[in-house]
Amino acid sequence: LADRARVEDAAAWIDAHAAALGREDVPVAEAAGRVLCEAVPAEVDLPPFDLAAVDGFAVRAEETVGASAYNPLRFRLAADAGDLPAGGAVRLEAGDRLPRGADAMVPLGHVEPVDAGACAIVEPAVAGNEVERAGSHSARGSVLLASRRRLGPGDIGMLAAAGHARAGVVRRPRVCCMTRGDRIEVDANGLMLRALIERDGAILAAPSRANPEGEVLRDALEPAGADLVVLVGRDDRAAEALTVGGGGFAIDGVALRPGGATGIGRTAAGVPVFRLPVAAVACYWAYEFFAGRAIRLLGGRSPALPFGSRTATVARKIVSEIGTTEIVPVQCAGPGEVEPMASFAEAGLGAVTQADGFVVVPESSEGYQRGATVTVYLLR
Amino acid sequence: LADRARVEDAAAWIDAHAAALGREDVPVAEAAGRVLCEAVPAEVDLPPFDLAAVDGFAVRAEETVGASAYNPLRFRLAADAGDLPAGGAVRLEAGDRLPRGADAMVPLGHVEPVDAGACAIVEPAVAGNEVERAGSHSARGSVLLASRRRLGPGDIGMLAAAGHARAGVVRRPRVCCMTRGDRIEVDANGLMLRALIERDGAILAAPSRANPEGEVLRDALEPAGADLVVLVGRDDRAAEALTVGGGGFAIDGVALRPGGATGIGRTAAGVPVFRLPVAAVACYWAYEFFAGRAIRLLGGRSPALPFGSRTATVARKIVSEIGTTEIVPVQCAGPGEVEPMASFAEAGLGAVTQADGFVVVPESSEGYQRGATVTVYLLR
Repeated sequence: LADRARVEDAAAWIDAHAAALGREDVPVAEAAGRVLCEAVPAEVDLPPFDLAAVDGFAVRAEETVGASAYNPLRFRLAADAGDLPAGGAVRLEAGDRLPRGADAMVPLGHVEPVDAGACAIVEPAVAGNEVERAGSHSARGSVLLASRRRLGPGDIGMLAAAGHARAGVVRRPRVCCMTRGDRIEVDANGLMLRALIERDGAILAAPSRANPEGEVLRDALEPAGADLVVLVGRDDRAAEALTVGGGGFAIDGVALRPGGATGIGRTAAGVPVFRLPVAAVACYWAYEFFAGRAIRLLGGRSPALPFGSRTATVARKIVSEIGTTEIVPVQCAGPGEVEPMASFAEAGLGAVTQADGFVVVPESSEGYQRGATVTVYLLR
Repeated sequence: LADRARVEDAAAWIDAHAAALGREDVPVAEAAGRVLCEAVPAEVDLPPFDLAAVDGFAVRAEETVGASAYNPLRFRLAADAGDLPAGGAVRLEAGDRLPRGADAMVPLGHVEPVDAGACAIVEPAVAGNEVERAGSHSARGSVLLASRRRLGPGDIGMLAAAGHARAGVVRRPRVCCMTRGDRIEVDANGLMLRALIERDGAILAAPSRANPEGEVLRDALEPAGADLVVLVGRDDRAAEALTVGGGGFAIDGVALRPGGATGIGRTAAGVPVFRLPVAAVACYWAYEFFAGRAIRLLGGRSPALPFGSRTATVARKIVSEIGTTEIVPVQCAGPGEVEPMASFAEAGLGAVTQADGFVVVPESSEGYQRGATVTVYLLR
């Protein structure tokens, strides 16, 4: 066990060998969840034209001079079609574009109905009244979205509003995942890894079951093949295929529990390869800490564990072995309090599905006393 | 403004009129992210058979009696193929299934190599040594996953390991979204709403642009059509189509800023209909608070705002108008501190993309003084 890598050294190796992939251009309509390659400037002022800031009537302000309850001024209702005719008013809703010629909005409360073709305005409006000016949110050329931002729905709206039809995003990693389908009845690891790989924005690039002759591995290791290879379990044929041309595992075993029986390396062509343990719960955590870290980096995402976190107080002592980073499942024990649950060794993957979260006890620590403050990663 | 609904009353109306849709069965391989219709019991004990708990050799424990460094016992290496022959040992890795006949694992450290066909065991093993017993994680029939759980990658692994090939999940809501593509140059609201609707697990069921004749709306309101309708902007034709047979808006205007110019109702057939404002930032928040709430409920998800949250201290006063629930964009101002940014009215959708999070000031509050503790919803 003495030559197991420390978790932080394994992470540093991964960070040094997995950089964001190249750019691809996708339609903005399909860019949600993707990661921007570079900062995006506004192609136009925002808003690109004057907008109504309230529900009401768009008018020429100068034509409303003198309007009052005692002197209602009659305006013809005009269609919302480009130009505002003299003496006309157009019914608009907040967010609508002002017609050409209009320079003010009269709110609904300052307008009285006359007939189907006209309305009466009872308060004067000054130019610019209740108008959201073109460029008032941001100017053409200003940075709308920072490089490496993962695009959310609001960002998609911004890109479209700012005149972008396409977005330059980091290519999705193609991952070749080979489980040992020959030794187990249901390929539970394969299905779980597929869900993890897709959650992290990558594409499963090859069948998830190992070819008994190792041909899938050789195919995957071709330059045109996968961006990353995940193997589950030790496999002499795969290990042999990996060493062709000088590839191999730089790290074999990490001081992490569960999930430490992990190999981390590269093919001769530089494709990262992760060998994950067979036991389901160990496979799960080895993915989250190592293979997933690399996949997230390749996709331009943060390498960090993809869970929300918060601080909590330890309600019952958490025990851990010095020299090993230990992942401890916890449940809520009261407001802002957590307590350890049956360990992953005792409960297997069930501890992942039943826990509210987990605590990572560093290798230098024997655990946490009752009352200690810890960071809890949230599993729900 | 006096007759605007309170945000909590609008939420209560939605909760009373949007229940989880019916069940559909999907392959476990495609169930990630879906919501379980009912609790799932284990079809088998877990693990379903005895597993190796360490890397080493599977043996019959009785055959190792008397083994020591001075009396190494020779075992023939056997293939991992069902039955363990007498006098044989099989090389396994933690998580592998024990062959029939084997009842103990001898760890690698207690084995010495002899030749390609044999090994020597130098410590006796007792039955059950380093074996993960069938059923030790959970028993057949025990509840693996609770009803309404949204399936994560670990859950997919559990379902597969427990013998489930398919899962009964809540059907994905079909949403008909009609924006006013006729009045704006780029359908930014339509693209943004598509990303929001898909984020919340629903399927866009019809073209996102309004049919000028209102036919799309009529189609959507057929019983076989959409589960929910989103309209953007006031549209007399749509309003008219909605009232056919007794449908209509139960709520027209909510005391929320931005996003209050929202209509909430149902068709005669009971399909929820949301009319969202045209201005992009108002459209965004009206979706998150109202239409999205209903879509999340239809899909069996939590109706809550789909953002992580944490408490923070207010570093600069947050001002809000009494009588209106106000959404205030904030940025980090120091460890555990937030401060308000340029408002949504000033910066539009840019305030969504630039903020670190937002604070919801209830209608009964004038805001928060410096030093107050608030809940911040995280936008990053």
